[in-house]
Amino acid sequence: MAPATVPPRPPAHGVTVWFTGLPSAGKTTIAGLVGRRLAEHGRRVELLDGDVVRAQLSRGLGFSKADRDENIRRIGYVAGLLTGHGVTVLVSAVSPYRAVRDEVRAAVERVGGFVEVHVAADLATCRARDVKGLYARHARGELRGLTGVDDPYEPPLAPELALDTAAESPEESAARVLELLGGRTARVAPVRGAAEVAARGAATAEARAAQALLGSRP
Amino acid sequence: MAPATVPPRPPAHGVTVWFTGLPSAGKTTIAGLVGRRLAEHGRRVELLDGDVVRAQLSRGLGFSKADRDENIRRIGYVAGLLTGHGVTVLVSAVSPYRAVRDEVRAAVERVGGFVEVHVAADLATCRARDVKGLYARHARGELRGLTGVDDPYEPPLAPELALDTAAESPEESAARVLELLGGRTARVAPVRGAAEVAARGAATAEARAAQALLGSRP
Repeated sequence: MAPATVPPRPPAHGVTVWFTGLPSAGKTTIAGLVGRRLAEHGRRVELLDGDVVRAQLSRGLGFSKADRDENIRRIGYVAGLLTGHGVTVLVSAVSPYRAVRDEVRAAVERVGGFVEVHVAADLATCRARDVKGLYARHARGELRGLTGVDDPYEPPLAPELALDTAAESPEESAARVLELLGGRTARVAPVRGAAEVAARGAATAEARAAQALLGSRP
Repeated sequence: MAPATVPPRPPAHGVTVWFTGLPSAGKTTIAGLVGRRLAEHGRRVELLDGDVVRAQLSRGLGFSKADRDENIRRIGYVAGLLTGHGVTVLVSAVSPYRAVRDEVRAAVERVGGFVEVHVAADLATCRARDVKGLYARHARGELRGLTGVDDPYEPPLAPELALDTAAESPEESAARVLELLGGRTARVAPVRGAAEVAARGAATAEARAAQALLGSRP
């Protein structure tokens, strides 16, 4: 009674674009703009917003490192399933820890492409935007463990793309993501406050991006 | 900074086929046979096995009614995402509670088709198979809350299909599922020990199945 397995699928050219960064850096805004444009051009697109997915998949989890990591693993699992079926998955999630982001990358790359986008803005800019009021709540002492303030954020070492959203508009940022997804090489620009960016070299990041876009499998 | 939304997708003809039934009733075996055949015919197929998904999405949840329901909701969420992108999703999960199965059906039907398959075998047959050794563990007192033994199982009232896996082979059961997915009407046969089956009428179930297969949206 061993279950039959499903034959391997042909590559479906799916890709996960993972937007990581501080609260109010602009992840969801840019992902939304990118998603709209891709959908208009006929791509199958799914937005996985960290807050939404957390409500669907991670009720009961908190914001300890272990719980944050588990939440990211779950989003990564879902992103991988969709990517394996040819969907362009746009994940916007703070996802502060590098190790679990790399773990998700490795899992998704087994079935499709993975592009990490560091949505980088300095803390003062994020605090001034404060889209969800988290920084204000923290300032009033109603919240602890806010990423970038009193909880860690580990910036990507070699993202396929780094966006300085303090200097460029959401539309400009979205255009850069679309350019990358269109297959052109994109320079990984160093970003203020993210000195580690490009440590592994832009050439490597570009090669990974190109591989991701081909939807190739190992 | 309100996020842009992605324009509505055209219907993608995805469908979730939800196999529910007691442990060792044959859910995963039949889903595997169905999945292999569909994949051979070029359909995009994803198997979501309850045990596997539980490990990926529901670490920390147990087997209380609330935890079982939450686990099923999570599987339903993932099945809905995939269905919305045109995938044929084969879920094999005990899913003992009717209300949450109906909740998942309602959610998935917003984006595609939903077909409920009651994989029905009498308890004695399931106990004799005992694929995972659960019945033996229960008999030895190592396990409590085993569905069908000392935990409830609420059979579907009007599944699109009911399979008597004590009387028919896995291959015969799989053929009936494939026939249903092929669009032909399938009689919902009453199954021993599931007297409630067809309470809402086979005509209704057939209509729902046809609608599901069309991938139509409300």
